[in-house]
Amino acid sequence: MKAFMDKDFLLNTDTAKRLYTSYADMSKIPVVDYHCHINPKEIYEDRQYDNIAQVWLGGDHYKWRQMRTNGIEEKYITGDADDFEKFQKWAEIMPAMIGNPLYQWSHLELRYYFGFEGNLNGSNAKEVWDLCNAKLRTPEFSVRGLIKKSNVRLICTTDDPVDDLIWHKKIKEDDSFDVKVLPAWRPDKAMNIEKPDFVQYINKLSEVSGIQVKDFDSLMKALSVRMDYFAENGCVVSDHGLDYVMYAPAEKSEIDDILKMALDNNAGVLSKTDIMKFKTAFMVNVAKEYSKRNWVMQIHYGCKRDNNTYMYEKTGVDTGFDCISNYTPANELADYLDALARMDCVPKTILYSLNPNDDAAIGTIIGCFQGENIRGKVQQGSAWWFNDHFNGMTNQLKSFASLSTLGNFVGMLTDSRSFLSYTRHDYFRRILCRLIGEWVENGEYPDDDTLLAPIVKGIAYNNVVEYFDFDLETI
Amino acid sequence: MKAFMDKDFLLNTDTAKRLYTSYADMSKIPVVDYHCHINPKEIYEDRQYDNIAQVWLGGDHYKWRQMRTNGIEEKYITGDADDFEKFQKWAEIMPAMIGNPLYQWSHLELRYYFGFEGNLNGSNAKEVWDLCNAKLRTPEFSVRGLIKKSNVRLICTTDDPVDDLIWHKKIKEDDSFDVKVLPAWRPDKAMNIEKPDFVQYINKLSEVSGIQVKDFDSLMKALSVRMDYFAENGCVVSDHGLDYVMYAPAEKSEIDDILKMALDNNAGVLSKTDIMKFKTAFMVNVAKEYSKRNWVMQIHYGCKRDNNTYMYEKTGVDTGFDCISNYTPANELADYLDALARMDCVPKTILYSLNPNDDAAIGTIIGCFQGENIRGKVQQGSAWWFNDHFNGMTNQLKSFASLSTLGNFVGMLTDSRSFLSYTRHDYFRRILCRLIGEWVENGEYPDDDTLLAPIVKGIAYNNVVEYFDFDLETI
Amino acid sequence: MKAFMDKDFLLNTDTAKRLYTSYADMSKIPVVDYHCHINPKEIYEDRQYDNIAQVWLGGDHYKWRQMRTNGIEEKYITGDADDFEKFQKWAEIMPAMIGNPLYQWSHLELRYYFGFEGNLNGSNAKEVWDLCNAKLRTPEFSVRGLIKKSNVRLICTTDDPVDDLIWHKKIKEDDSFDVKVLPAWRPDKAMNIEKPDFVQYINKLSEVSGIQVKDFDSLMKALSVRMDYFAENGCVVSDHGLDYVMYAPAEKSEIDDILKMALDNNAGVLSKTDIMKFKTAFMVNVAKEYSKRNWVMQIHYGCKRDNNTYMYEKTGVDTGFDCISNYTPANELADYLDALARMDCVPKTILYSLNPNDDAAIGTIIGCFQGENIRGKVQQGSAWWFNDHFNGMTNQLKSFASLSTLGNFVGMLTDSRSFLSYTRHDYFRRILCRLIGEWVENGEYPDDDTLLAPIVKGIAYNNVVEYFDFDLETI
Repeated sequence: MKAFMDKDFLLNTDTAKRLYTSYADMSKIPVVDYHCHINPKEIYEDRQYDNIAQVWLGGDHYKWRQMRTNGIEEKYITGDADDFEKFQKWAEIMPAMIGNPLYQWSHLELRYYFGFEGNLNGSNAKEVWDLCNAKLRTPEFSVRGLIKKSNVRLICTTDDPVDDLIWHKKIKEDDSFDVKVLPAWRPDKAMNIEKPDFVQYINKLSEVSGIQVKDFDSLMKALSVRMDYFAENGCVVSDHGLDYVMYAPAEKSEIDDILKMALDNNAGVLSKTDIMKFKTAFMVNVAKEYSKRNWVMQIHYGCKRDNNTYMYEKTGVDTGFDCISNYTPANELADYLDALARMDCVPKTILYSLNPNDDAAIGTIIGCFQGENIRGKVQQGSAWWFNDHFNGMTNQLKSFASLSTLGNFVGMLTDSRSFLSYTRHDYFRRILCRLIGEWVENGEYPDDDTLLAPIVKGIAYNNVVEYFDFDLETI
Repeated sequence: MKAFMDKDFLLNTDTAKRLYTSYADMSKIPVVDYHCHINPKEIYEDRQYDNIAQVWLGGDHYKWRQMRTNGIEEKYITGDADDFEKFQKWAEIMPAMIGNPLYQWSHLELRYYFGFEGNLNGSNAKEVWDLCNAKLRTPEFSVRGLIKKSNVRLICTTDDPVDDLIWHKKIKEDDSFDVKVLPAWRPDKAMNIEKPDFVQYINKLSEVSGIQVKDFDSLMKALSVRMDYFAENGCVVSDHGLDYVMYAPAEKSEIDDILKMALDNNAGVLSKTDIMKFKTAFMVNVAKEYSKRNWVMQIHYGCKRDNNTYMYEKTGVDTGFDCISNYTPANELADYLDALARMDCVPKTILYSLNPNDDAAIGTIIGCFQGENIRGKVQQGSAWWFNDHFNGMTNQLKSFASLSTLGNFVGMLTDSRSFLSYTRHDYFRRILCRLIGEWVENGEYPDDDTLLAPIVKGIAYNNVVEYFDFDLETI
Repeated sequence: MKAFMDKDFLLNTDTAKRLYTSYADMSKIPVVDYHCHINPKEIYEDRQYDNIAQVWLGGDHYKWRQMRTNGIEEKYITGDADDFEKFQKWAEIMPAMIGNPLYQWSHLELRYYFGFEGNLNGSNAKEVWDLCNAKLRTPEFSVRGLIKKSNVRLICTTDDPVDDLIWHKKIKEDDSFDVKVLPAWRPDKAMNIEKPDFVQYINKLSEVSGIQVKDFDSLMKALSVRMDYFAENGCVVSDHGLDYVMYAPAEKSEIDDILKMALDNNAGVLSKTDIMKFKTAFMVNVAKEYSKRNWVMQIHYGCKRDNNTYMYEKTGVDTGFDCISNYTPANELADYLDALARMDCVPKTILYSLNPNDDAAIGTIIGCFQGENIRGKVQQGSAWWFNDHFNGMTNQLKSFASLSTLGNFVGMLTDSRSFLSYTRHDYFRRILCRLIGEWVENGEYPDDDTLLAPIVKGIAYNNVVEYFDFDLETI
């Protein structure tokens, strides 16, 4: 019987413990978090939290969803109950969440940041509340303190092309903080012609870029201007959120017509096919730009958002009402990448489907579009969002290993809105070391650290540095 | 080496054994079987079986299918061979079924009910036949005897809206039998307008409800009258068998037109879209009624039935010629539930897909439609039919735990036609305790029975009592 | 800690070791490789290899793909670099392929054929090169030598209906070689009316069959003539590569019109539906012929080929640019088999989907179309191509066992282009014994070799002999 979530958590073999301790422990091997949703303003201002509810329950829709699943009233979730009441409710439902990643992440955070080694539940909620809050109010628990404590060397936030990146600039200019905080390019709003705020968005884009968007070419030109601006501010990575990766090629004149229809506020008459044609043209053309700039293209797909209209109208986007879509055609994804290959402009690409059934298809598609002189140019990304748990991560790693070359994997990201969630990197590294440990102890791979160290350190840290070409030293 | 299927079957850790013995053993923790296909008449009449072939091979299409898979002639399956010959054939193919749930269920039943601890095969078939038959002919092996021996407290059968529920009434009036036998509402025939017997069925419905069905409103009214009748007789749960959960909304006038076409015996001219529109309207409106009555709505989907036309014409429905469908669009399922959410009438809902690839999508969809003041209002149901085996159950439990709150799960049902199949609850409970035992012994959850007992007893028994609001005491 | 890939590789229990040693070891239990892509000419001429790069890297697109995934330049893959340079590159990427089947297959081959027990990497590439080449140049490492060393009793190649089978005839006439080398019937080119070389192919078919193909009947007649020729030369098995198993029935006159359009070089105007109608008619009618001849029909589907147009134009077909398709409708597959069942002409059938998500659906579909007096008439084939790894094989075995009768399984095939890949049978047998060993040691199946030996020997060898009705003795 292993003790509850102690230092050997998830490490079930001696090999796993050795690999973790030597080549994966976050205190030795730092963290690059190349994809998250934290607010750079909070880093610049070095926000200090008043209590654990603010950090944990202020914006985390994963937790909100669990609370709703346990019948808790909305006032204790996104409503106006006070912070301790919310925390108490959260604590009360913890024990029922056996086997849930939130159970494990929460306890990892309590242990790693606050030194609490028990299990949170309704009866000790007040004690944990007091313990955490006392620490949170100390300077070393400021946002920057938490980042440093987590041994993070570089963060990529998620930013809109029209963003002025003012906080990234200020952080860069602040010599007192040596962690790199880089923008990432997320141009979804410029692609989603069917959305009601599209025209307004394009006007804003025209304004900040100085390019009047009136057809597809000028749209691309405006985006290109903004990409240059992002690049000047350190950006090397894009991110796209798609329902699925579509491929519906069309003539440029047709794309212009579709775009003009949308710009004339007539998007309502566009067919689903029209919209997909426009998005295809968009995705093909931004990929060309990424390839030219040596940026990484991330594509996240397989998500259906805002499913509960009633709650959406009350609580808005990103509040816990999304689900996995199982309409994720592999054929269109392959055809999209082929369109890039035909133009010899496949950028470095990371594909993430929210649908775990896509692991195998992705694993085989990436193998068709690799590039010379770079390891793993096209990769499957880490298990994403709803798959970001023990089984999901393990399955993704096994699939990646079986179908591609695991040693090239760029590894984990938090995708998080919280400064306490760097322990997810720890969680991932433990799962990685566990899996490799099993292979070694089963005689499937040599018990030889000259071979194993580069793999584990690579996936934990070095690969991401090399792949993104970040200005950091490998270890 | 563990002994073959002994008392510790599937319990691979000390924790699993302790949890099973204390909180899951059927002799201590009773059974609620909220979904099955047994005949209430046989309960009322307390049928006595003459031989094991009648119980095992009389109506079990799972076994028939295995026999066909082993090349056995149909006369030994659904034909006129004598009962012992059929049993002999079944026994002969047992050894080849290594890893099949029927191998394990059969031996659980032999052990639990008949005390036979060997393995059934061609050479000992006669011995097992004699052993079982001698017991089956004793009073304690009557249908009621088997139910009591299985520590069953409540059974929900599956019943058509036009059913008079006479056997349920009689059982209720019979003071000598204290197990509740409640009807469950299965209105598929009122929805399947494309089927040849639809008009005839609607005529019958008009007759028993006293409401002449002539349009959609009167159809709903007739069903509502019958729901009231079912409710008077203890019904609290519905069940629907769908190819997939469709969402094709339409105006009411259009639904009326479609229904009238069918009532005029012109269903043949309806398009697939018409049919889906009608079914959508049907499913939305019955859900409203369930919500009003606080009934549970079960939806089973992902099954393609009667695939072998040649055999269908010989042996009819439910004889072993169904398969998993992989056309199970998650997007339409989410949209259907959203339609209910917009009207604030999501009933308590349990979703079962026969397609195991849907586990993750369902796990995320249910999280979007929960309700205040009830734990797990929308749930994924237990691994169903073809997934009702060790891997299927384990995967469903892991998925449920990873994506929802396992502690709220209402757990197992037999879905069976046989009075010997309550051991499937035992099988499920062993798998549950095994999984939780592994989590505890791996240090993923505290080794603390104040936390574990409510989870195990909950999933085995208490949750179902509370969720369905059955008139039973929790334990 | 088990030693690296020693004699007990993958055998994690005593039972697994006993079963493997007694009933699965290739030195005792021979190999039938009923599906592969080796060249019979090389067998007849008893080709001798000059170096390990020729065997390993001459035509193996699995390895080429891995090399591309590691950024290696094409000149070291399919280009004009010299053989040692290519081998050196391959060796260098080996260590990063932890968890990949190529890592394990390569080392199995090095150990089994060449006695090399280390791990191949960049630093010992020259040493391994010399070791292997010295052996390869000896007579016992000729093609026939390798086949005999692998204890192969029978091989089915893959052959086009227009092939003259000259090499099969010559091998049969050569008394110095007692391994049966039989043709297998692969008529894809006669079905793919949309391909540019269709008309040319049909002209060739008309010529070799002596039947002028001018409509659907004459096409079928020409194929029937060729089937007779194949049967005379020992053929008992067909193979089809489909995108997915379609079912789009149409009138014969319509099929004739579609075919004529293609024969008139107007295939370009055919709709996707037309093409599917033609292919449906084709597949239904060849199945009738197979049924009449008692041939086995293999259907491989779920693959999207030649995805990278740029590379396709450089390197051609089968060079490593294929992927899994997830458009694999189970409903059409079931309807296709039903069409055969209605005509009482379901042949012995083996279904392989490249999409691993199809395991469960296939497992249930096969159960609907079995036949009397033959065990497992319709089967799921072994984990195929991209699934041909530890997890893929294990999942397929578990799924087969859960949904069908594992004891009837016809087991493994190499699908390979290399004479060193018979170790994949060894890999499969180890995984099989491991899984069965776990079941036995967990008490899920009796520890009784009178039951276990027929299962293991059956899946390794006897079942395939009986199912295909090969002229070989069972063991």
